[in-house]
Amino acid sequence: MLGETYPIRTDLALESQERLKNRGEVRGVDFQEEERENGVVVSTVVIQTENAAHAMGRPKGRYVTIEAPQMAEEDEGYHRDISLELARIIRQMLPEELLGGTEPQKEDRGLEISVLVVGLGNRAVTPDALGPRVVDNLFITRHIMNEFGRYAFSDEDVSKISGIVPGVMAQTGMECVEILRGVVKETSPDLVITVDALAARNVRRLGRTIQLTDTGITPGSGIGNHRNAINRESIGVPVISLGVPTVVDAATIVADAMNSLIHAMSLSNLQGLDERERQELARELLSPQLNGLFVTPKNIDDSIKQLSFLISEGLNVALLGNKEEAESI
Amino acid sequence: MLGETYPIRTDLALESQERLKNRGEVRGVDFQEEERENGVVVSTVVIQTENAAHAMGRPKGRYVTIEAPQMAEEDEGYHRDISLELARIIRQMLPEELLGGTEPQKEDRGLEISVLVVGLGNRAVTPDALGPRVVDNLFITRHIMNEFGRYAFSDEDVSKISGIVPGVMAQTGMECVEILRGVVKETSPDLVITVDALAARNVRRLGRTIQLTDTGITPGSGIGNHRNAINRESIGVPVISLGVPTVVDAATIVADAMNSLIHAMSLSNLQGLDERERQELARELLSPQLNGLFVTPKNIDDSIKQLSFLISEGLNVALLGNKEEAESI
Amino acid sequence: MLGETYPIRTDLALESQERLKNRGEVRGVDFQEEERENGVVVSTVVIQTENAAHAMGRPKGRYVTIEAPQMAEEDEGYHRDISLELARIIRQMLPEELLGGTEPQKEDRGLEISVLVVGLGNRAVTPDALGPRVVDNLFITRHIMNEFGRYAFSDEDVSKISGIVPGVMAQTGMECVEILRGVVKETSPDLVITVDALAARNVRRLGRTIQLTDTGITPGSGIGNHRNAINRESIGVPVISLGVPTVVDAATIVADAMNSLIHAMSLSNLQGLDERERQELARELLSPQLNGLFVTPKNIDDSIKQLSFLISEGLNVALLGNKEEAESI
Amino acid sequence: MLGETYPIRTDLALESQERLKNRGEVRGVDFQEEERENGVVVSTVVIQTENAAHAMGRPKGRYVTIEAPQMAEEDEGYHRDISLELARIIRQMLPEELLGGTEPQKEDRGLEISVLVVGLGNRAVTPDALGPRVVDNLFITRHIMNEFGRYAFSDEDVSKISGIVPGVMAQTGMECVEILRGVVKETSPDLVITVDALAARNVRRLGRTIQLTDTGITPGSGIGNHRNAINRESIGVPVISLGVPTVVDAATIVADAMNSLIHAMSLSNLQGLDERERQELARELLSPQLNGLFVTPKNIDDSIKQLSFLISEGLNVALLGNKEEAESI
Repeated sequence: MLGETYPIRTDLALESQERLKNRGEVRGVDFQEEERENGVVVSTVVIQTENAAHAMGRPKGRYVTIEAPQMAEEDEGYHRDISLELARIIRQMLPEELLGGTEPQKEDRGLEISVLVVGLGNRAVTPDALGPRVVDNLFITRHIMNEFGRYAFSDEDVSKISGIVPGVMAQTGMECVEILRGVVKETSPDLVITVDALAARNVRRLGRTIQLTDTGITPGSGIGNHRNAINRESIGVPVISLGVPTVVDAATIVADAMNSLIHAMSLSNLQGLDERERQELARELLSPQLNGLFVTPKNIDDSIKQLSFLISEGLNVALLGNKEEAESI
Repeated sequence: MLGETYPIRTDLALESQERLKNRGEVRGVDFQEEERENGVVVSTVVIQTENAAHAMGRPKGRYVTIEAPQMAEEDEGYHRDISLELARIIRQMLPEELLGGTEPQKEDRGLEISVLVVGLGNRAVTPDALGPRVVDNLFITRHIMNEFGRYAFSDEDVSKISGIVPGVMAQTGMECVEILRGVVKETSPDLVITVDALAARNVRRLGRTIQLTDTGITPGSGIGNHRNAINRESIGVPVISLGVPTVVDAATIVADAMNSLIHAMSLSNLQGLDERERQELARELLSPQLNGLFVTPKNIDDSIKQLSFLISEGLNVALLGNKEEAESI
Repeated sequence: MLGETYPIRTDLALESQERLKNRGEVRGVDFQEEERENGVVVSTVVIQTENAAHAMGRPKGRYVTIEAPQMAEEDEGYHRDISLELARIIRQMLPEELLGGTEPQKEDRGLEISVLVVGLGNRAVTPDALGPRVVDNLFITRHIMNEFGRYAFSDEDVSKISGIVPGVMAQTGMECVEILRGVVKETSPDLVITVDALAARNVRRLGRTIQLTDTGITPGSGIGNHRNAINRESIGVPVISLGVPTVVDAATIVADAMNSLIHAMSLSNLQGLDERERQELARELLSPQLNGLFVTPKNIDDSIKQLSFLISEGLNVALLGNKEEAESI
Repeated sequence: MLGETYPIRTDLALESQERLKNRGEVRGVDFQEEERENGVVVSTVVIQTENAAHAMGRPKGRYVTIEAPQMAEEDEGYHRDISLELARIIRQMLPEELLGGTEPQKEDRGLEISVLVVGLGNRAVTPDALGPRVVDNLFITRHIMNEFGRYAFSDEDVSKISGIVPGVMAQTGMECVEILRGVVKETSPDLVITVDALAARNVRRLGRTIQLTDTGITPGSGIGNHRNAINRESIGVPVISLGVPTVVDAATIVADAMNSLIHAMSLSNLQGLDERERQELARELLSPQLNGLFVTPKNIDDSIKQLSFLISEGLNVALLGNKEEAESI
């Protein structure tokens, strides 16, 4: 397949797993999928071996994906469900060391850890603005707790949350990991959560999928190469990376279409097609969903707006708890 | 060719002309091209007949294109050259009725007409924000001249300039042409100049080409369908439309690649290629410039910033004159 | 009092009423006040005579004010209450002609009228961006209903909502009323609702008060003079004007302080104060709430964000109905 | 004077010097002033002793102020002059250790040092957005030089420039100095240049004055308290701080007016004034320039835009050199 030699780019482990599965090579990769009542699908890919990591093109570790077809639309109840799902998954991904050997805490209680949330990406390019916009909407508590203590909040179980938007290398001249390493050393958070816009292979996933992983971010992925590996090794504290695909690489779209075409043409009965029939075939291969799509969708501004609220709500619940809502999970 | 049946989208008359020329059908279309010393190419397509208009897929009229490879980069002198070129072309496009039967005025004098500049597009989507950003940078004079007269300005030859950013239909619920028709009736400008982001067929033209036309904007073109025909018929005053391609339609890119592939495969010597050779061919057909390009380029924010300054400078010179600079043209 | 001769500026009828009341002159002005359970106060000033209009410095008509101390803070339930209050007041202000002689409809049904919502102010100046931000968050339906009819929505009782952000005169060279008159003639809404940032006299009201009136907007009010009377006379359809104070005029603050000082100094027992005692007095007159306040508050960005959501939710409920929530009013 | 006891706030050393001078106490403070041909005034305040630092309310060191009445207007030539003045002053402020014992280099050569430019302030509050906007417009070179070396640039004498917009504490939960200390340790610049919006005492200085100092930024100054001392002691490298006043503290304006009033009233001949005469006096004391001013001016968006270009041009020339222009200084 073309995909083997031509670099098909996706930041979603789920899509890498799908590609491998089609080729029957999934040794060392564990996959599970659950469907919720509201149609939301939560799937987990665990890459268990170095061989599997090589085949998958990403580090060993756990990748959880929430697929929610209506995610970018305005529907408060649905968004609330996904925010809570997100909060639940973040809680489960917390390193044991942060939980003091106890069970993950219920969402009806806040955590009592310190977290630095990092909004990766470029605020000035709409599909890349997700990370910065999420940080805009977060409930930041660190400076208040440092000054007044936890008693500034009615609850005693509240995390110390800080946030940063480091900018992209073209704007700063620095790798994000340089900035974060410095900030982490100075402010000593227990955990870093990064939020970023991703590239998917499949246009249907744009704005409808959230990936969470405990492996950090591998360099060169994402919309731009606005980072160099941000993970526990490089910055010294555990990292949870959250991302939403907002773009598809143009080369990926073309390669996929070409691939389909070549595959079809290699079938024996294709040899007899005349020029017109071949064109007809090519048109069929161009899926109609590409029409009017600029690889990042036209309504990317609304999509980013909805998503940034949804994710910041999920982070707020994960870190601060939500007594009213969480009990209903 | 696939392009005949599959709708290849371009907002540039120059690209439609290139396509027709390749097929030898350019009757009724006049084409001229001039290269400037600094490498800038100014070409003029005149669609003279209804038949030609049909073949070109756009109204009869004049389309002038400035192609300037370094347009989106920071180079003050180069930008200044293009601004002045832009000013010159706008002056030439002015309807005779506005010039009172005299020659187009030299750029060292301002005009004394009233002009409404319309920034089409969506400010919140980076590649579609060109029009709004140009209006941000314009020198608006109408309210000052209405209150204090032309003597508010040291020059007596100054145009009455107003500007509006009507927004896109998803935000307003109204067609742009409805808003403009109303505003034009109330404020009676002599001329409307629209500024918009366009779609090109060729990625190399993104951010490097300016098209000007006296035909107005045909509906359905542009990034979104954020308008319905804005022209002299629909709004009652002459319209000059200025646009810069900032996106390529994803379907266009794929169709172009498929087209090349099918064309190559229809050549007899291709039949003997084995699977590997065919894949090799397909990779070659995927031009490397697609890599890392999200159909709108990654640095679209910088590009829009540079372009919006360049164009507003051109409009300012065209409408208000520039004694220092214009003499050197 | 200084206020009589020096122009004390406020856009709130409630504040004009308070000033008159202090002087015992409230003939022709009806005033009523209700306090809700959650501490929100809704007061109504009705200016009944031309004399009263002159004394109050604003047109005859009804001015309803919602005062809600926690309005600019993040509290979903509280915001929801105020949104519903807002919706209720807008419904009551609808001209009878739009209701077809029937009672104002309950909020559990949408209206079936067409409304143009106008976001006045300058998006680029934070405290003046309220109107534009409210329009950003509105649910726009006109284009959908024009294309697909009301059956595009599951409910049959849905208003046709359009929105526009006309910009300010320094950016457009046009009076807002010129733009609106044109747009209203072309698109024929039944009603215009304007949203604007206002100036208050009292800093404690900033971001905590919403004024609604059926008199339109009087020219020269607001943060800038970005309009000329927008009312039924000037644009031809009924106008409901909604505003939130986000600034206090600097001259107002100084005049108030001076006024207090002069008043205090005119008391006989002041004559005996020595220099130090007078300074002590002056410091006391400078209310501590001025400290750290730049007349528009430092957290104006958050305040604008919260308010724009709150108001657009109120407008959405008022115009589209909200079956779940409205029943609980 | 009221000013002695009530905290009159200004971030401009020049204004503190003026206040002291009025009282005859300028021991330990050296002051020099030069007027340029174009009316620009460059003044230098050097605080030489700890006593003087105490009286001035700011650290020992050099404070250079550029006063340019037309600074916030659009005038390319004038801006260019000020940019070059700015570049010249920055060069003179460079610590000797960075110059290797040689004379400050001429502006026709770039420096060969590494500089981190810090845009302080809140991008979302218009008058506080100066720092972030300056960084947006800078020419960032560090990442290019790290990857390709200085040969990426035609000149060999080019500085390594990086930039960061740390955000304000309410958004990040961290002190700016924490973020900067970390980033400086990781990326080891030779010099930090901070850019910030300041508070002035005199409204006539808003947007028309640039202050540069080698003392760093004292905590609690500026629009918000978005920092804690950023200087060589706290971050380990030399700091040049550049600021432009964009606001006046409301309490300052009131205190100034009150002060004038009290002063006037303490004069013996004032005792005979009747009520009406006192009011007349108070009105006169309210300077007309306060009218229509919201303590940050209404056109703050344009002002910030012009200033951010001007300053980034100055920084670009200072750090990268400008062969064409610099020779003409």
